[in-house]
Amino acid sequence: MPYDPFAWTASAQRRRADAGLRRTLRPRAARSALLDLAGNDYLGLSRHPRVTAAAARAARTWGAGSGGSRLVTGSTRLHARLEAELAAFCGFEAALVFSSGYTANLAAVTALTAPPGDPGLLVSDAGNHASLIDGCRLSRAATTVTPHNDPEAVRKALRARGTGPALVVSDSVFSVDGEAAPLAALAEVCRAAGAGLLIDDAHGFGVLGDGGRGAPHAAGLAGDPGTVVTVTLSKALGSQGGAVLGPARVIDHLVDTARTFIFDTGLAPAAAGGALAALRLLRREPARAARVRAVAAGLYTRLAAAGLSTARPDAAVVPVRAPSPRAAVRWAADCRAAGVQVGCFRPPSVPDGVSRLRLTARADLPEAELERAVGTVVAHAPAGG
Amino acid sequence: MPYDPFAWTASAQRRRADAGLRRTLRPRAARSALLDLAGNDYLGLSRHPRVTAAAARAARTWGAGSGGSRLVTGSTRLHARLEAELAAFCGFEAALVFSSGYTANLAAVTALTAPPGDPGLLVSDAGNHASLIDGCRLSRAATTVTPHNDPEAVRKALRARGTGPALVVSDSVFSVDGEAAPLAALAEVCRAAGAGLLIDDAHGFGVLGDGGRGAPHAAGLAGDPGTVVTVTLSKALGSQGGAVLGPARVIDHLVDTARTFIFDTGLAPAAAGGALAALRLLRREPARAARVRAVAAGLYTRLAAAGLSTARPDAAVVPVRAPSPRAAVRWAADCRAAGVQVGCFRPPSVPDGVSRLRLTARADLPEAELERAVGTVVAHAPAGG
Repeated sequence: MPYDPFAWTASAQRRRADAGLRRTLRPRAARSALLDLAGNDYLGLSRHPRVTAAAARAARTWGAGSGGSRLVTGSTRLHARLEAELAAFCGFEAALVFSSGYTANLAAVTALTAPPGDPGLLVSDAGNHASLIDGCRLSRAATTVTPHNDPEAVRKALRARGTGPALVVSDSVFSVDGEAAPLAALAEVCRAAGAGLLIDDAHGFGVLGDGGRGAPHAAGLAGDPGTVVTVTLSKALGSQGGAVLGPARVIDHLVDTARTFIFDTGLAPAAAGGALAALRLLRREPARAARVRAVAAGLYTRLAAAGLSTARPDAAVVPVRAPSPRAAVRWAADCRAAGVQVGCFRPPSVPDGVSRLRLTARADLPEAELERAVGTVVAHAPAGG
Repeated sequence: MPYDPFAWTASAQRRRADAGLRRTLRPRAARSALLDLAGNDYLGLSRHPRVTAAAARAARTWGAGSGGSRLVTGSTRLHARLEAELAAFCGFEAALVFSSGYTANLAAVTALTAPPGDPGLLVSDAGNHASLIDGCRLSRAATTVTPHNDPEAVRKALRARGTGPALVVSDSVFSVDGEAAPLAALAEVCRAAGAGLLIDDAHGFGVLGDGGRGAPHAAGLAGDPGTVVTVTLSKALGSQGGAVLGPARVIDHLVDTARTFIFDTGLAPAAAGGALAALRLLRREPARAARVRAVAAGLYTRLAAAGLSTARPDAAVVPVRAPSPRAAVRWAADCRAAGVQVGCFRPPSVPDGVSRLRLTARADLPEAELERAVGTVVAHAPAGG
């Protein structure tokens, strides 16, 4: 028998193909005629000339890479400026920038469940993002998964833990269906139990709160001593990377202990420069945040009026349910053929196993394009959708 | 008592301070008078005008960010070109680019230990990088940690596993001391046992092998059906990101199943563009790889001649042992004050708990600077170093 230790990947692939769960990379051109309702560039800043010029300038000024771990040579004054302005904008004492939102979440969950001698308890919402789930798996804390958006279940889990430390972890806006978490209620439960609260604001930052300051800011949690927030630089800020925001000593603790901070190369200067320029634009043009919410509401109202199975968006994400993975793939392909790109989410990317299209609002989407997008999605809806 | 669930981080920090284990971010200016022997820009390409120009052009052409997951809108033709050229250069069928080497390693370890029904066995070298260790922790496979660079121990671990699938995981060049793994022996053991071999070539790619094609290429493993390799775009290629190289069907399997691929935003265009330009430069100027090895050898010879506790480098990393964490910090600070920046590695970043300076060779380091660097390190050596 020939040496072929990965032969099993071929049969696993056939099984996925039979179930309609193969995934295909579709590399796009720099300029596309497709109307994009699939990406996470919520504020339309990724191609803003000031943002791309700042990214280009940062690459020429600081180099194409940061050169090493942030703790060795990878920290530039550009990173420090971005961290200071992110923290100030969102109302937290300090911030720490990572190479991705994924690694920021791994860092926050693991480093904040490491009290000496007692890793304590993690309480994690059933709908949390994969990076938070992986953080729970990497943590040495025991994890209780609570039903989706259920503060009462969180209260019970905390009560059952005894006296040890505890951390409650939740997305602020869930990425698949775009619904918000009850942050104020979660914070109240945490405060009563002396537990910390870690919020992943990837889909709220730049979209929710005063001028896009995010869901925790809107819930009155900015600067709260028991709240730590992760944000991404790759969605509303149109760049790449993630950040953790919180009390200064919590950020210092991450610098000292977070493995995905210590053992990863620092974020590339171009990404830091692009994100900083986007943040400054958002500060100057706070209406962008309100506009993306209005576009999302417009998408929802029209899709619902056409009888599709959708859900009122709390931020920029609008889901539309499909009868099967195959139907979702065909629906998205038909839309693309008609000039509109929408997301297509199937297992394992959907918490309930139900495949759906995922439309994302953009602050720079004109009304006419919004009409065209909805018209296209409705026209190609499968029977039973 | 005030609500302060993260109070424990302050006492944990005091304990680290008492042990000499606090870490400080030191944001650098764009132009520094310091001689850099701390970063991982082995080929001196991070600030090469062609590389920074390519990064800047990519940001302007494609945007500051990729816009979403590689599976939604985050795949550009630039990513596809980079993947094709990386695979061809290193001699593998296919490649997949990630936002960091860390997430590439998490993806490779977890996705390659997921045969349906039986996650099998992971055999991991005791000196492996944090990202491989975290990959093992995230995997559902049982993990056996074998003594450092001990193929016979790997053989025994595989023999003990029974008939299930197995994956052996090793750095090609270990990041702290720069010593190489016995890849040919490991591959022979894997072949005899029908196990897969995953090699993290972060510190070998661009430095070892014909024209910098990497340690697996040098060991005759390019294109091997049982070998998968991860590389980083942030060291020899001077940019940001990571990649997995291997058989096409293994790469397809990662696209379908790797969580840090599916649930992460695609690498920023500037980082992809910078890495591609650096790769093309390396292909045109293969002597860069030989030059960095010669510089490393020159550093070692001089440090050893001065009586310091160092180790013959297999690639670009040259370690120098220090008597304590505090002594290492002071030594590095003294060097910096004298104009030379060196790395300072302390627990938990050192496998054996011994703090050391870590010097890295660069292909663009002139002889005179090499002399100055060694002179500075020797002049400030602590007693007992």
